[in-house]
Amino acid sequence: MDGMRAAPSEPTLAVDRDSIVPVYRQIYERLREQILAGALPEGSRLPPERSLAERLHVNRSTVVHAYRDLAADGLIAQRVGSGSRVASLDGGRPDRAAGVPWWVTLPPWRVGAFPAVLGELAAAEHRGLIGFVQGVPPAEPSPLADLSRSFARAGGDVRLVLTYGDSEGYLPLREAIAARVRARGCAVDARDVLVLTGSTQGITLAAQALAEPGDEIVVEAPTYPGALQIFQIAGLRALPVPVDDEGMRVDHVEAILRTRRPRFIYTMPSMHNPTGVTMNADRRDRLVALAKRHGVPIVEDDPYGELADRPAAPLLARDADYVISISSFSKTIAPSLRLGWLVAPRTIYDRLLLRKQSYDMASSMYMQAGVTDYLASGYDAHLAALRAELTRRRDAAFAAIERWWPPGMRAARGGDGYYVWATAPRDVRARALLASAERHGASFLFGEAFFPQSGGDHNFRLALTPVPFDALEAGIRRIAEALEALRAP
Amino acid sequence: MDGMRAAPSEPTLAVDRDSIVPVYRQIYERLREQILAGALPEGSRLPPERSLAERLHVNRSTVVHAYRDLAADGLIAQRVGSGSRVASLDGGRPDRAAGVPWWVTLPPWRVGAFPAVLGELAAAEHRGLIGFVQGVPPAEPSPLADLSRSFARAGGDVRLVLTYGDSEGYLPLREAIAARVRARGCAVDARDVLVLTGSTQGITLAAQALAEPGDEIVVEAPTYPGALQIFQIAGLRALPVPVDDEGMRVDHVEAILRTRRPRFIYTMPSMHNPTGVTMNADRRDRLVALAKRHGVPIVEDDPYGELADRPAAPLLARDADYVISISSFSKTIAPSLRLGWLVAPRTIYDRLLLRKQSYDMASSMYMQAGVTDYLASGYDAHLAALRAELTRRRDAAFAAIERWWPPGMRAARGGDGYYVWATAPRDVRARALLASAERHGASFLFGEAFFPQSGGDHNFRLALTPVPFDALEAGIRRIAEALEALRAP
Repeated sequence: MDGMRAAPSEPTLAVDRDSIVPVYRQIYERLREQILAGALPEGSRLPPERSLAERLHVNRSTVVHAYRDLAADGLIAQRVGSGSRVASLDGGRPDRAAGVPWWVTLPPWRVGAFPAVLGELAAAEHRGLIGFVQGVPPAEPSPLADLSRSFARAGGDVRLVLTYGDSEGYLPLREAIAARVRARGCAVDARDVLVLTGSTQGITLAAQALAEPGDEIVVEAPTYPGALQIFQIAGLRALPVPVDDEGMRVDHVEAILRTRRPRFIYTMPSMHNPTGVTMNADRRDRLVALAKRHGVPIVEDDPYGELADRPAAPLLARDADYVISISSFSKTIAPSLRLGWLVAPRTIYDRLLLRKQSYDMASSMYMQAGVTDYLASGYDAHLAALRAELTRRRDAAFAAIERWWPPGMRAARGGDGYYVWATAPRDVRARALLASAERHGASFLFGEAFFPQSGGDHNFRLALTPVPFDALEAGIRRIAEALEALRAP
Repeated sequence: MDGMRAAPSEPTLAVDRDSIVPVYRQIYERLREQILAGALPEGSRLPPERSLAERLHVNRSTVVHAYRDLAADGLIAQRVGSGSRVASLDGGRPDRAAGVPWWVTLPPWRVGAFPAVLGELAAAEHRGLIGFVQGVPPAEPSPLADLSRSFARAGGDVRLVLTYGDSEGYLPLREAIAARVRARGCAVDARDVLVLTGSTQGITLAAQALAEPGDEIVVEAPTYPGALQIFQIAGLRALPVPVDDEGMRVDHVEAILRTRRPRFIYTMPSMHNPTGVTMNADRRDRLVALAKRHGVPIVEDDPYGELADRPAAPLLARDADYVISISSFSKTIAPSLRLGWLVAPRTIYDRLLLRKQSYDMASSMYMQAGVTDYLASGYDAHLAALRAELTRRRDAAFAAIERWWPPGMRAARGGDGYYVWATAPRDVRARALLASAERHGASFLFGEAFFPQSGGDHNFRLALTPVPFDALEAGIRRIAEALEALRAP
């Protein structure tokens, strides 16, 4: 924005040209908020389209588009010759004005800075690019043959298909999960397990059941963009804590807890997404001790825990009263199962259960029964094969990076094959690199999406698993070519 | 409560003996709230257990239990001889005190009056009773054989299993749904369809995306208890509107809209749960006109719409800008699919989509692909057979009611075989009848769970579908016997 003083009725506007939210929509939203809040009262004159466009350094058509939408929604009146004025809102509370369509007066959307990222992570298609985008299991080793047999067995039983099933989850599955979690060093009983429709549901559960809009929480920076979007939609303020080669900087957590009372600490201590780092034992001890001392629970997101070469015990193993541990079968079997689970202390189990019911009654019994069967048949062999494949992919990716990337573009070691966290040279922003890479036939996620406030401008994440093994090297090479093209005169 | 004046530090307490929340827990919660809010400051003396028990007309052990839990959570200190006092909370904001465990200072739970009802509706087992409880499809006609073939086809395709899939839903399924909704008279395109993990997810979406805690909404009374629990958890205040033989009393809606601005109107216009009533065409016209005049959207819950003998067009057919229409395959194919959908105006589609992503990324691609296959193969034949079976069950149920129930116990005609809404004689509360029925080997849902505030004391709902056909008459007879036993001297 320029430094011009605004007249009293002149709207305050600032646009972010880098945002995924189109600029015309940003202008619309700012003006809408100011009109509904009464900051721009009835009859106020909006700046002429041409002068606002000049002030904001945008095309005039962008402002025209924003004004046209405001007029269509009844918020402004446009008359040839006399310009645009704030319309009469027919009395009523200014935030629920009767003269405008109902969808204009909805509660704040709280959409994050990068609303398209979760969609990108879920999307089925990537337009023929070599897409290092989604965190999905590799196509090989495939669990499909064994899974199909398990589902055929479950699908033949009316009692497993024509019912909702307990909201807590199918008891044999809860027992099987509890046994696996116990094998990783946690004292867990089947009744502590709540089956989820994917671990995303567990993050939303924590955000909604443990906190209220306006509350603060602690997150790693970088962290999983899906979690950031959930926290944003829930109205939570995320306080970032950096991650280094040994995991979350627990000394930063301690500094925060000295002066603030966050509702919870969200962390991914094993095979952290996106860096691949696993938190060391000493930090795990200190983090749990801090949580207990300050009375702040830890939400442990552990979808990759079983995939590490040497799996670390979840934080849950250190304390079952202060740790809610969330995991999933999406990264180990298949995302389309939409099955995950959490382990929670008895003190809050019912609170989480009632909310989970309000999301979807219960997770699919058919899915649960099929997976229970699979856990007892093909799962362990599949996990072993999957670990080997992840290692093979990691090694191939780093070999290609060494071969093709110039010295200024780096990739962090660590990680066990799901992701590579990379850094572009100082003179290249990751979003510019992405745009160039897409022209060269490769895609990835830019780093800013992994940070709650700022950071990551030069970082990007490669997901190694969705790409055919034989295309890994070509994709990595294309990114090098994309960089070269950016730097060419 | 008695009429005694309370001393300044004396807690205000009232217990509801009829609530499903145990009385000791009610006492605990009330005291907890007053302590954390500072209404009972540090050092305040709580009434001695014996005198509080007398005042509330409860057992002393009930108060002992409540006090013991308060002491365990660090909220009070108990000393032999000097009784119970409010503990020191170590400074800090009183609502986030540092001296008490973290789970004690969580945000309000907002649990409804009947927190167990959704669980009952979902539960897999009903202890060997003839259980007229869950709204699940009957075991016959079974979709299992055709469904299994459809799932086997979907499960063989890696692209459908090892992916999340678009958050909007699997495009071929959205197209198939749009075609079916168009066939019911609505102008709908695949891009207006959002696939849901069950229609419960759609109700939560509406509650969270269209309203904020403290907002009012309009609901039918009686209505689906699951929706009431969702609204309660979302912090919404439900304004009840009665239902008669022609559906929702739209004149009552009009009276409400004259003075209030509810965020939306939640209605089940076709085969209303629990009464089975279908709203007549005139009221449908007037309701939609009212919504438009007052700028209040309608959330149409339509899971049974395709099952009526003569299906009515959804409200959506009358206006696509003011109606969000939600439906499901749970009542027509199987609940364990956990698949539903909504149709929403473009003005709010993205807002709903981003929230849906935050709940579970996307609904299961595997499920969606299987159901898409089934819609094109066995579904229409199954629907026809299901309608016939529902009619057969309704006729059998009413024959049994006429045969076994005394004249004072009535059942509403109407409904197409899923539910019967019944009324016990004036001298018998439905909850007492339920307790007696369970001793006689039958179960159902009591009417109060269907009302947002009060009402339904003498009503109860029979779900006809979960019971084996041959047990319908025996179950209905047992309820008559349960009534007789209550009235016996």
